[in-house]
Parts: sequence; C-alpha cells; structure tokens
Amino acid sequence: MSKPLILVTNDDGIAAPGIRALVEVAETFGEVIVVAPDSPQSGKGHAITIHDPLRLKKVSVFEGIEAWECSGTPVDCVKLAKHVILKDRPISLCVSGINHGSNASINILYSGTLSAAMEAALEGIRSIGFSLLDFSFDADFEASRFWAGKVIGYMLEQPFRHGCLLNVNFPKLSPQEIRGIRLCRQANARWVEKFVEGRDPGGRPYYWLTGEFINEDTGDDTDVWALENGYVSVVPSMHDLTNYTVMKDLSDLESIG
Amino acid sequence: MSKPLILVTNDDGIAAPGIRALVEVAETFGEVIVVAPDSPQSGKGHAITIHDPLRLKKVSVFEGIEAWECSGTPVDCVKLAKHVILKDRPISLCVSGINHGSNASINILYSGTLSAAMEAALEGIRSIGFSLLDFSFDADFEASRFWAGKVIGYMLEQPFRHGCLLNVNFPKLSPQEIRGIRLCRQANARWVEKFVEGRDPGGRPYYWLTGEFINEDTGDDTDVWALENGYVSVVPSMHDLTNYTVMKDLSDLESIG
Repeated sequence: MSKPLILVTNDDGIAAPGIRALVEVAETFGEVIVVAPDSPQSGKGHAITIHDPLRLKKVSVFEGIEAWECSGTPVDCVKLAKHVILKDRPISLCVSGINHGSNASINILYSGTLSAAMEAALEGIRSIGFSLLDFSFDADFEASRFWAGKVIGYMLEQPFRHGCLLNVNFPKLSPQEIRGIRLCRQANARWVEKFVEGRDPGGRPYYWLTGEFINEDTGDDTDVWALENGYVSVVPSMHDLTNYTVMKDLSDLESIG
Repeated sequence: MSKPLILVTNDDGIAAPGIRALVEVAETFGEVIVVAPDSPQSGKGHAITIHDPLRLKKVSVFEGIEAWECSGTPVDCVKLAKHVILKDRPISLCVSGINHGSNASINILYSGTLSAAMEAALEGIRSIGFSLLDFSFDADFEASRFWAGKVIGYMLEQPFRHGCLLNVNFPKLSPQEIRGIRLCRQANARWVEKFVEGRDPGGRPYYWLTGEFINEDTGDDTDVWALENGYVSVVPSMHDLTNYTVMKDLSDLESIG
C-alpha cells in the first residue's frame, strides 16, 4: 500500500516554528506536502479571497519536503492545495498548526488554523487542527510533537466521517506533566474586548483590538477544563451550526406573516 | 418603555443597497445605529483584525440615522459598535445584511454578514443575519423588506437565548410568490472549487477562486429545500461546533498515548 499523503498548513505562516514541528511529526506517517500562508494569518477565521488573485510560490523551507507559500488565507491554502497543486489527488489527512496559542472553546471561530482544518473536512479529508497554549515564537513543542503523533496515528486508522475534524489543544506543560487526552465539548466561554485607543503620527484616532478570555462554563467535560487540568483536549468538531435544541421553541415562527 | 436600540451591519459595505433596505425596516422598530465596513468584505468569515489598527468614521449615509464606517471586518464592526461607539449601552437586536447573495447552508461559514450576526450573539445580543438570493447590485428588496420586518418583530418578542442567531435567506421572488417561512436545518451542501488561472501584466501566474455550489442533501427540512420551494428559510444557528454525535465513536481516543 502506498504511503498516506498528508497536507500540512497553518495560520502563523510557513516560517513559524509550530508548522516545522508538525511537518516533522507528519513525515513519520507518510508523504508530506506543505501549503501555508506566506505571512501571519492569525484571526482570519474562515475568510476566503474572492476579490483578489492568489499567488503560489514553491519554496525550500523543509528539507526533502515539497512546500508552497500562498498569498491568501489558510482556507485559500487548502483549496489551492487540493485543486491546483495536487489536482484532486486523494489526500489521506490534513493537519493544521501547530498554532502558537490556544484555539480552545470559541477560538475555533476566529482561528485560521482551525478554519483550514474545517475546510479540509468539508472537502472530504480527515482533518486535525493542533494548537499549543503558548503564544511565544520560541515555544517548546516537545510534548506537542509526542501527542500530535499519537492523535495522527489514531486518526489515520479511523473510518472517514464526513465533515468531522478534531480540534486538539496542548497545555503548556512538559511531556512528564501531561496527564493524557480528554475528549471534550467546546467550552462556552467568551472574549471581553477592550480597544486600545491611540493617535497615529498624523493625529488621526485608531483603535486596536485586545481582550481577555473569560470562561464561565463550569463543566468538567470542556476543553478549557481539560487544559487547565493538565490534559490534551480533543473536541470533535463540525460545520453544521444549526441550533437543534432551540428549533422546537421557535416553531411558531412558521406561522407569522 | 424606551425604544429598542438596533445595531445594523453587513459585509457588502455601508454603501450597498441591501443595508439601506435593512435600515429602513429596522427604524420602524426602534432607534437604529449603523456600523458597517467601508469596503466590501464578502467572504471574510469570522475574521478579526489583530495585526493592524482600525479606523472609524462618522458618515451621513442614511437620513436621520447615526452611521459609522469602519476599516475592518464585519466582526470588527460589531466589536467596535458595542465597546467603543455604544460603550456597552444595551443593544436589543443586531441585524446584519441584507446580503446580496445566498448565505444558506455552509455559506454561513464564509459569510461576513453571518459572522457579524454570530459575533453579536456571542456578545449576548439577539441577532439575525439576512440574505437575498440575488448577487446583483440592483437586486429588488421589496419582498425581503416585508419578511425581514416580520422576523424582526418576532425576534424582538422572543426571550433572549444566549448565543442563538437566526440565519434568514430570502428567495429571489416577488412578495406574491413567496409562500411563507420555513424553520430549517442547515443543508449539508458543498462548494466544488475551480481556480481560474492566468498571467498578470508582468507574466507571473495567478489563481482566482471560483466555484459551483452543490447540494446533495435530499432532506425537505433544509434551508436549500425551503428556498428552492418558494419559502423564506430560517435556520436557528449557534457557535458551538462540537460534533456530539461522533463523540461516543471516538471514546477510545482517551486511552491512547
């Protein structure tokens, strides 16, 4: 049997240490191709580029690995990888990350890393997004590498489930300190925004987004709980945003008008 | 009792006819404030601007209505409206749109219009995203205006449900042709991408995203079905992407490593 073809992408850009760590793990499982943004794309969510052309450039960033940098968003990278670079050659797995910083809870909505993974899932590819709870450029990916390997090995043996991706977050701990994996639901947390207000050199006002992550979800079955308690969190995620639980409460909506 | 405060935004930009139609409907229900992008932001999904400052400019676009244009994404507009412009004054309702083009099915993921509505829902605001199945600039919003009013009136009387938003799509039909409202689930459809390849004036290759929307979901309870059968579709939506149905299938994941 031929080796599995594994697509690697991220949102921190092709030069980020996190994607290098993920490439090193992925190449122990199969043939790796990297298609990643040429610049940081954090917070780009599920954005796609429709009003501008996209650029692709083959680069030598990872020894012995075919790699392309792309001018677009992480979701653009997945679409270009599948349709232009690989010309619909079957992809066994897409892995995205390892993100520098958490994508637990509602951060999945804002994250380019996880949106790339979701796009792959939509395109019928097994898919995993990985993130480490450390924003720093020189974050230590040792434990992440170990656990990413475990999850990739598991996922490659799973039957394909359309539209299902895994959102995997690693606590900022040493390999010895991590207690294992927890299968979780997405914590119902939120961001409390602040905007830093300032004046540019021309005297014009600007606003710069910042904020604080607040978790008021007290469940011990959430990703935030798992991470705070020393576990790797895995949330099986999907693209169906239908709120089935409120559907029946709104049934009289069909009779208005 | 004071009039409800209604925030209006969109992703087609503050000059689009669709947002003007929505402002006209919203002002029959309460005090309206508009905070919308200064340029088209279609396909921006849940993107936020974190690496650049944001600009806000008060503009006179709608007679007698306070309106601001923003240099950021639709989600940025909602955050700035709540925290900077309204300084956390309670917002009764956020309405986003009326989008020029469908946001049914998985288009909710790519849509700036719907991501703005979801951001408002996350911030604890009743929220509705509206879209008309007509991409043209001079689309006819007459039927959309009528049904948007019906849905807004309904939603303002509903109890607040945290994180719940409505994804409302209007078929491209006359008021007489529309058969009513259907409460739906999100159709499990997909885009089949194509990239138009070309060369720029400097001879360098580019790729431009295009594609075809394919619905293979045969259910008669989906938004795509409703729209194809002459109904306004309403999908109650949410931000929890956890795939609860596959959770039990993956329970052995906790024992690896």
